[in-house]
Amino acid sequence: MSLLIDCIGELFTADEDGSVHYDAALVVEDGRIAWIGHRLNRPAADDYLDLGYKAVIPGFVDSHAHLVFDGDRAGEFDARMSGEPYDGGGIRTTVTATRRADDERLRQNCARLTAEMLRQGTTTVEIKSGYGLTVEDEARSLRIAREFTRETTYLGAHTVPAGADGTVMDADEYTALAAGPMLDACAPYAKWADVFCERGAFDADQARAVLTASANAGLGLRVHANQLTAGPGVRLAVELGAASADHCTHLTDADIDALANSSTVATLLPGAEFSTRSPYPDARRLLDAGVRVALATDCNPGSSYTSSMAFCIALAVREMHLTPAEALEAATAAGADALRRRDIGRITVGARADLAVLDAPSFVHLAYRPGTPLIETVFRGGAVVHAATP
Amino acid sequence: MSLLIDCIGELFTADEDGSVHYDAALVVEDGRIAWIGHRLNRPAADDYLDLGYKAVIPGFVDSHAHLVFDGDRAGEFDARMSGEPYDGGGIRTTVTATRRADDERLRQNCARLTAEMLRQGTTTVEIKSGYGLTVEDEARSLRIAREFTRETTYLGAHTVPAGADGTVMDADEYTALAAGPMLDACAPYAKWADVFCERGAFDADQARAVLTASANAGLGLRVHANQLTAGPGVRLAVELGAASADHCTHLTDADIDALANSSTVATLLPGAEFSTRSPYPDARRLLDAGVRVALATDCNPGSSYTSSMAFCIALAVREMHLTPAEALEAATAAGADALRRRDIGRITVGARADLAVLDAPSFVHLAYRPGTPLIETVFRGGAVVHAATP
Ligand SMILES: [Zn+2]
Ligand SMILES: [Zn+2]
Repeated sequence: MSLLIDCIGELFTADEDGSVHYDAALVVEDGRIAWIGHRLNRPAADDYLDLGYKAVIPGFVDSHAHLVFDGDRAGEFDARMSGEPYDGGGIRTTVTATRRADDERLRQNCARLTAEMLRQGTTTVEIKSGYGLTVEDEARSLRIAREFTRETTYLGAHTVPAGADGTVMDADEYTALAAGPMLDACAPYAKWADVFCERGAFDADQARAVLTASANAGLGLRVHANQLTAGPGVRLAVELGAASADHCTHLTDADIDALANSSTVATLLPGAEFSTRSPYPDARRLLDAGVRVALATDCNPGSSYTSSMAFCIALAVREMHLTPAEALEAATAAGADALRRRDIGRITVGARADLAVLDAPSFVHLAYRPGTPLIETVFRGGAVVHAATP
Repeated sequence: MSLLIDCIGELFTADEDGSVHYDAALVVEDGRIAWIGHRLNRPAADDYLDLGYKAVIPGFVDSHAHLVFDGDRAGEFDARMSGEPYDGGGIRTTVTATRRADDERLRQNCARLTAEMLRQGTTTVEIKSGYGLTVEDEARSLRIAREFTRETTYLGAHTVPAGADGTVMDADEYTALAAGPMLDACAPYAKWADVFCERGAFDADQARAVLTASANAGLGLRVHANQLTAGPGVRLAVELGAASADHCTHLTDADIDALANSSTVATLLPGAEFSTRSPYPDARRLLDAGVRVALATDCNPGSSYTSSMAFCIALAVREMHLTPAEALEAATAAGADALRRRDIGRITVGARADLAVLDAPSFVHLAYRPGTPLIETVFRGGAVVHAATP
C-alpha cells in the first residue's frame, strides 16, 4: 500500500539544506518516505491525503527524557519557585517512590507521558533509567522503558544512592556496582549508557569507569555534562566518542573546541533552566563554533517536568537566540543525530514517515505562539497516531 | 435541573481565603454554583458527576486580548527574534489586513482563537477593537467581538493611523475622531474603552480626552499603561477610576502608590515580554505594596500571539516570582476583578459554574509542567464545553 500526501503549504524537511518547500507532495510506502517532490510531478499511489495549507514538519525527536518513575514533586517545585524552604529529599524522593511502585504503576506513568508526548508531536523519545539505583530496579526500569522505545538508556550512575543503613553509599563502591553487576543486568535492555558527571554526583574517573565498561558491553554513550559547573563531562564525552553531551550549560573555550571537532552532539535542555530558574546555555556560541546542537525536554519530575518540544523551541528562540528554523532543526534532525539515527527527524527519501501537521501556516508559529498547542495530526511510520478534535 | 459534582481531589476556589479544599462537592443549578461543601454533607441533585482525583480550578478569565484582526506576522517575529532587519509595517500591517478582510473572515479568525482559548480553559475573554481605526472598521470589529463575549472594549485609540494620503494623521485630529464620531459609532457595541497611552501613541491629554468621553458615553475604562516607559498611563488610569491598568512594566514609586490606593487592577501580560524579549514587570513589588494583580495573554498577532493562560502562569512564576497560587488567582479571580465581575473567576456560591478540570493532581502543575496541555474538561455555566480525548 502506498500513500500520496499533498503538502500545499509549508513543508520543513530538516534535511541538509534547511530550506522549506511549498506545493510539495510525499509518497509513503511501507512506513517510509519513498518519494518527495513538486506536486505537479507526483506519481500515482493507492491512497491519497491532502493536508491543505497547514505547515508540515518532521515528528519531534526528544533525545533526553526520564520517564520511568513514580511520585510527584509539585510541592518541591512550589517551594523552590516561591523561595521557601522545603524539607524534601530531591531526587531521593523519586528513587524511593519508584522502588516502591509495582511494574504496572511504572508502566502506566510511562504510557501516560509517552502518549502526552505523541499528542504534542514527538514521534521518537529516548527514555533513561536512573531512579531505581539497585541492580533489580535499574533492570526493571529499562525493561519497562523498552516497551515504549528502542532508545533506552542505562543511567545507573544518576546519583549515589543511600545504602541499606540509610547513609549515602561510598561513591567508588557504587561506581563499581554501576560499572559491574548493575551494567550486566541492564545491558540486555539498553541501547545507551549515560552518567551524571558533576560535582556531587560522579567525577571524571568514576564516569569514565562506567562509560568504558558500558562501551565494552556494546552500549552507545551519552553524558549528563556541565549542567551546574564547567566540569570534565563534555571533554570526557568527546574523548569517549559519546553520541551526545547533554545540558552544556557551563562551558569553557576548550569544551567548545572539543565539541566542534567531534561527532558529539550538544543537547540543550532549556526546560531544566526554566524550571530551576537557572541561566540558559550559550547556544549561539556553540552554533557559531560549528557544534551540532539538539534540543530535548529532559522530562523528569524534579527539574523539568515539561513534555513539550514546542515549548523547548519557544525557549530556545526567546532565551538562547536560536532562529525558529535552527530551533526546529535542533528538535528534529539534530535530535536524531544525538541518537545516531538517520531514519528519523527529517523528511527525506528513506526516512520513517514521522510527520506532525500544525494548525498553523508556518513552523515559525511554534515559537510565535508559545504555549499554544498547535499539533493537529501526527503520523508515525506513515500511520495517523494522533488527530486533534477541533 | 441540578448537578452534583464530586471533587475528591484538589479544589482551588480562588475565593478570599485562597485555600485549597479536598473531598469537596459542588451543586450547580441554572448554570450557577448553588452549594459548596464537604462531600459528606452534600445534598441530593438530579444529576451526578465524579471528577476523581483531578485538580479543579475556576475557568480562566483572560481580561486582555486583541482577537479581531486578519493577517499573520510570523515573518516579523522571526526577524525580530533572529536579530535580522525586517522591512514590515508592524501594527499597520495588521490594520491594513483587517480593513481588507470581510466580516466573515474576521469572524472566523475570532472563532478560531476563542475556541482555542476555551480548549485551554479560558471561559471568559475580553476582546478589543483597535485594528480598524476608521469609524466603520472599529464599529464592525466590536459588532463581531460582541458575538463572542460580553466583555468588548473599544480601542480606537490604539495607534494613530495613516490618513487617506498615506502619511500619519495628526494625533490631535485623530484623537478628536476617536473621542467623537468613532466613539459614538462604537459605544453601542462596547462595554469598555481603552487607550494606548505611551510615547509614540497617545499622550496623557489625548488619552484623557478619549477616556473621559467614553466614560460619559457609559463605558467602563481600561488603559494600556507604562508598557515601554514610565509614562503617565497608570496615574491616569487611577485618576479616572479605570478597572485596569494593563502592562505596568515600567513603574515609578508614585505609580505603585497610586495603584495600591485605588480599585484599579494591575494587569500583567508576560506573554508580551516573552515574545518581544523585554524585561518583565516587577510583580512582587506590586503584590507587596498591596496592588491587585491580574494576568492575561494580550493575545495579538504582533507582540504576544499566545492564547494560553497556563503559559502566562508559568511565566509569572518563573520570571515574575509569583507563587503558583498567586499566579492562578491572578489568572482567575483577579482577572474577573479587572473586568469588575464577581460572578466569574471564582468557585463560590452564586458564581457562574465555569470550571476547568486538570489532567493533574494539583493546580501547581500549571507551572510545574510548563508548555504541557493539562486542561482535560471545561465547564461553562455548568455545561461541558470541552472534553479532551485521551
Ligand atoms: Zn537528564
Ligand atoms: Zn494589548
